[in-house]
Amino acid sequence: MKKIAVVLSGCGFKDGSEITESVSTLIALTELNADYQCFAPDKEIETVDHTQDQSTGTRNLLVESSRISRGKISPLSSLEEKNFDAIVFPGGFGAALHLCDWAHKGSQCSTLPEVEKSLLDFHKASKPIGAICIAPVLVAKTLGSQGVTLTIGKDKETAQEIEKTGATHEPCEVDDFITDRENKVITTPAYMYDDAKASQVFKGISALVKELVEMA
Amino acid sequence: MKKIAVVLSGCGFKDGSEITESVSTLIALTELNADYQCFAPDKEIETVDHTQDQSTGTRNLLVESSRISRGKISPLSSLEEKNFDAIVFPGGFGAALHLCDWAHKGSQCSTLPEVEKSLLDFHKASKPIGAICIAPVLVAKTLGSQGVTLTIGKDKETAQEIEKTGATHEPCEVDDFITDRENKVITTPAYMYDDAKASQVFKGISALVKELVEMA
Repeated sequence: MKKIAVVLSGCGFKDGSEITESVSTLIALTELNADYQCFAPDKEIETVDHTQDQSTGTRNLLVESSRISRGKISPLSSLEEKNFDAIVFPGGFGAALHLCDWAHKGSQCSTLPEVEKSLLDFHKASKPIGAICIAPVLVAKTLGSQGVTLTIGKDKETAQEIEKTGATHEPCEVDDFITDRENKVITTPAYMYDDAKASQVFKGISALVKELVEMA
Repeated sequence: MKKIAVVLSGCGFKDGSEITESVSTLIALTELNADYQCFAPDKEIETVDHTQDQSTGTRNLLVESSRISRGKISPLSSLEEKNFDAIVFPGGFGAALHLCDWAHKGSQCSTLPEVEKSLLDFHKASKPIGAICIAPVLVAKTLGSQGVTLTIGKDKETAQEIEKTGATHEPCEVDDFITDRENKVITTPAYMYDDAKASQVFKGISALVKELVEMA
C-alpha cells in the first residue's frame, strides 16, 4: 500500500488550506486504497472571518488543520521522506501565507525550512510531488532553478512571477493537470479559478492524485 | 436547475459540521449541476481542539461554517422553503449540539426553532429532506410522530433512542443510503462509522444527493 504525506496549512481558503481541495485529496487517495498521513506546521497564525475579511484572532495552524483530518495530524517538523512514497500540498491562501510568504514577496519569498527540506528530500529521492492551486509556488521557489514545469491555471501575473524562479509555467484548465515527468512534479489549478465548481476541482485533483499514486 | 438548501453547523466534526461530509455534499450537488445555498445559525458556540478535546474558546457558527462554503453563507433564520427544491443536513457533532441538544438529552432534546420550521415546511410541501451521519436525529425528533423511516448506520444505542420519537430505524452500510419514499426522507450513515474511509463516505453521500436531486 502506497503511503502519501499530505501537508496542510490551516482550515479555510482565506487563511489556511482550501477545504474542498484538501478533502478532494483525501477522497481521491482513499479511493485508490492509498494510505496517508496529514502534517502541518505547529505555529500560531492570524485568522480571518471568511464572510467579511475581519480578523478572528490568532489560532494554531496544526490544531486548525486537524479539523480537516479528523484529529489525526503530525507536526510538519516530524515528516521524514523515507517513510512516504509521495507528498502532496493542497492549496488555499495558507500555502502562500504560512508555508512561505509568497503572498507578500512573490518570487523573493522565504519558504518555511520544513517545507523546503521536504521538497528537496522527495525530489532528490525521485518521489513524486503534487501541488494544488497556489501551492505550486512552493515547488517553483524550491525547485525552479532545476527547471521544473508546473501550472497555477491561467493567472498571467502569478505565472510571470513563477517564471522568475526559473520554473516554466504552462496554462491548464481547472479540471485538468500538468505532469513534469523528469522532476515528478504534478500540479492542478483548482480554485485558482475563483468561480470553479466543487465538482471541477474534485475532477482535477482526483486526476492529479491518480497520477501521483501511479508514479509513487 | 434544481436549488438545494444545505444547512451547516460549524466547521469540524467535534464541534461543528463534519468537513468531509459537507464537502462531499457540495461536490455531489455540483456534479449533478444542482445549484445550492449554504445556511447556518448565527450564534456563538464553544469550540474544541480536534487534536486533544480541549476548549479553543467561543466562535460564531455562521462565520466558522463559511470556511466550508468559501464565504458565501446565509443565516438559517432567512431560509424560506418556497425558494428551494430540497434541503440537506450534513452531519458532525454540531448537528447534535447546535441544531438541537440531542447530544445531551437524546430523544427528549429541543430542536432549534429555525431547524424545526425548515423540516416541517419542506415535509409539508412534499419536498425531499436529506440527512447525513447523526443529522437524522433532527428528522426523527421533528417528524418521528409521522412515522418516518431513517438510518444512522448500526449504532444500537442511538437507533433505540431514535425509535422513542416514533421513527423507524433501519441499519445501513456506510456507502449506502435509506429512502423513505412516502415522507421523502433520505439518510446515509457516513462517519457514524468512525473508521470509515473518506471515499466510502463520499460514495454514500453522492448516492443520497443523487436520490435527493432526482426526487426534488
